Amino acid sequence: MGVVIPLKDRSNPSANLKPLLDLTDADMRQVNRIITERARSDVETVPELARHLIESGGKRLRPMLAIASAKLCKYTGQDHVTTGAAIEFLHTATLLHDDVVDESDTRRGKKTARLIWGNQASVLVGDFLLGQSFLMLVDAGSLHVLKILSQAASTIAEGEVMQLIAANNTATTEDDYLSIINAKTATLFSAATESGATLSGRVAEERAALRSYGKNLGLAFQLVDDALDYSGNSKDLGKAVGDDFREGKITLPVILAFRRGDSTERAFWNRTIGQRKIKDGDLEHAMALMGQHNALEATFERARAYGAVAHDALAIFDDGLEKKAMLDVIAFCIERRH
Amino acid sequence: MGVVIPLKDRSNPSANLKPLLDLTDADMRQVNRIITERARSDVETVPELARHLIESGGKRLRPMLAIASAKLCKYTGQDHVTTGAAIEFLHTATLLHDDVVDESDTRRGKKTARLIWGNQASVLVGDFLLGQSFLMLVDAGSLHVLKILSQAASTIAEGEVMQLIAANNTATTEDDYLSIINAKTATLFSAATESGATLSGRVAEERAALRSYGKNLGLAFQLVDDALDYSGNSKDLGKAVGDDFREGKITLPVILAFRRGDSTERAFWNRTIGQRKIKDGDLEHAMALMGQHNALEATFERARAYGAVAHDALAIFDDGLEKKAMLDVIAFCIERRH
Repeated sequence: MGVVIPLKDRSNPSANLKPLLDLTDADMRQVNRIITERARSDVETVPELARHLIESGGKRLRPMLAIASAKLCKYTGQDHVTTGAAIEFLHTATLLHDDVVDESDTRRGKKTARLIWGNQASVLVGDFLLGQSFLMLVDAGSLHVLKILSQAASTIAEGEVMQLIAANNTATTEDDYLSIINAKTATLFSAATESGATLSGRVAEERAALRSYGKNLGLAFQLVDDALDYSGNSKDLGKAVGDDFREGKITLPVILAFRRGDSTERAFWNRTIGQRKIKDGDLEHAMALMGQHNALEATFERARAYGAVAHDALAIFDDGLEKKAMLDVIAFCIERRH
Repeated sequence: MGVVIPLKDRSNPSANLKPLLDLTDADMRQVNRIITERARSDVETVPELARHLIESGGKRLRPMLAIASAKLCKYTGQDHVTTGAAIEFLHTATLLHDDVVDESDTRRGKKTARLIWGNQASVLVGDFLLGQSFLMLVDAGSLHVLKILSQAASTIAEGEVMQLIAANNTATTEDDYLSIINAKTATLFSAATESGATLSGRVAEERAALRSYGKNLGLAFQLVDDALDYSGNSKDLGKAVGDDFREGKITLPVILAFRRGDSTERAFWNRTIGQRKIKDGDLEHAMALMGQHNALEATFERARAYGAVAHDALAIFDDGLEKKAMLDVIAFCIERRH
């Protein structure tokens, strides 16, 4: 029998985030304090730009996952807090660079930093945050965690390059797409959860379990992200519905609609996503085609399948508040609307 | 009595680089091997783009300085080689990002990576190299060196942001300019030399001496770089003379010519550097004004002064091949034509 993901209250997905928020609350206050301290710089633009994004109400899911993993592994030290802050900095740096690469105008309902301070400062402040991130990890003193996160930094960049190459290419396969989201998104989720286990000095088996949980949760998270871009509403999302469509980004809903469609439909996808020749009504037509071929439902279905793998990965751990919080967040990632 | 910088053969500045090249030759072969290995990636564009810049005939002064410093400190291990490669990767990453930020078209006589593969891939491959750089340092296993270099990564980015803010601002003072070049250039030189001492487990006094040597050498290096942009020839430089002028970059030759000039001259600088309204003949006029006010000679003079400080910094070390190579390279940095 397969694992059933708990979906207690579909009308309020945030309820599934609450156990994780409660579990990590005290530690996250410290994470947030460290983040504020380390975003300081005597160079005026640096903290301004960094804080614009850092204080824009991101969920801070990755540091929470690192902390929850450490707690699940009965970690009693303080380095999980520094590690959490470093992970959020690394994440923020990649977002700053992504917005430059994708020429994005909004993120989390606000203008992107690149629109306010320019692409140049966004690239450089990203670099500043990367440096600060590694500096914090040095302070935490775990070479093993440093190794996980510096490898993650490289892999994320490789994933972004793969995405760049795949852009506008409707021939991209579902497997290509999986390689991309594995590198650009799942890597940092698994780095976060594996770091928590590593700090605790756990056996290889438990580190591997948490790495697998993080990876599959990250895949589910990104799949839902990509589906929401065609099905969410702009207010919840903090960005316009259809941004991926306008950017010609190849995501699973497009891959499925393209492959399941007839030659007229493929010509439509080749014109819009492939050549970025977009007319009024094209987004609505794209969404209608996705509906016709169940492309969004299939994307959510894939996300649920990865969620089930993440769920199973935690089976070797004892039940308790920590495990419950980490299982519930799987449901949150799948049912969320932003 | 002041220190006299040895200027044995002004007609052949490279002669002053030779002792350093000889001293570090065997180790640099290993550095180069590691660099080639670590630039690998399964994502096609990544190694291509990285190698375009890495294999473009840079002098690799920074890793040579790290290695020479380790040798001066009688280091007998192997981690100086990995550290050298990591420093060159960090340097390459900053160059890739700088060329995007400065919109540069040529570097080392070749088209910049951003012109061939685009700004987006240049940003991302820079991030990849930063990750690889820290991963190598983790392998070398020195937390102290990791701390020096992650701090350097942040400081370099801060320096670039300062430079961005100062761009086109003719009111920039010599002190502002010094803060900028200290952060963006001297930091990595001093990080390289300090790392060599740190690996060797030397006393604080010797680490401080090598840090000071590196910093002052880096300042001299950048001052000469900025003077060569108005006085070198394009073939030696590997880029067009006057690039800084066309970009509106504030460097010491401009600061001095502006301050030493009359109101008509200042209006000229405000139009060209300040507003980037450049007409035919403006570069020649700028160079004439610099000549009239000895702005280039004064810039070289400043470089020689920092060179003298670097020279003095090494006084506490015993004479020998290592020290000679490091003293001679000061003269090279000042007398070089590229």
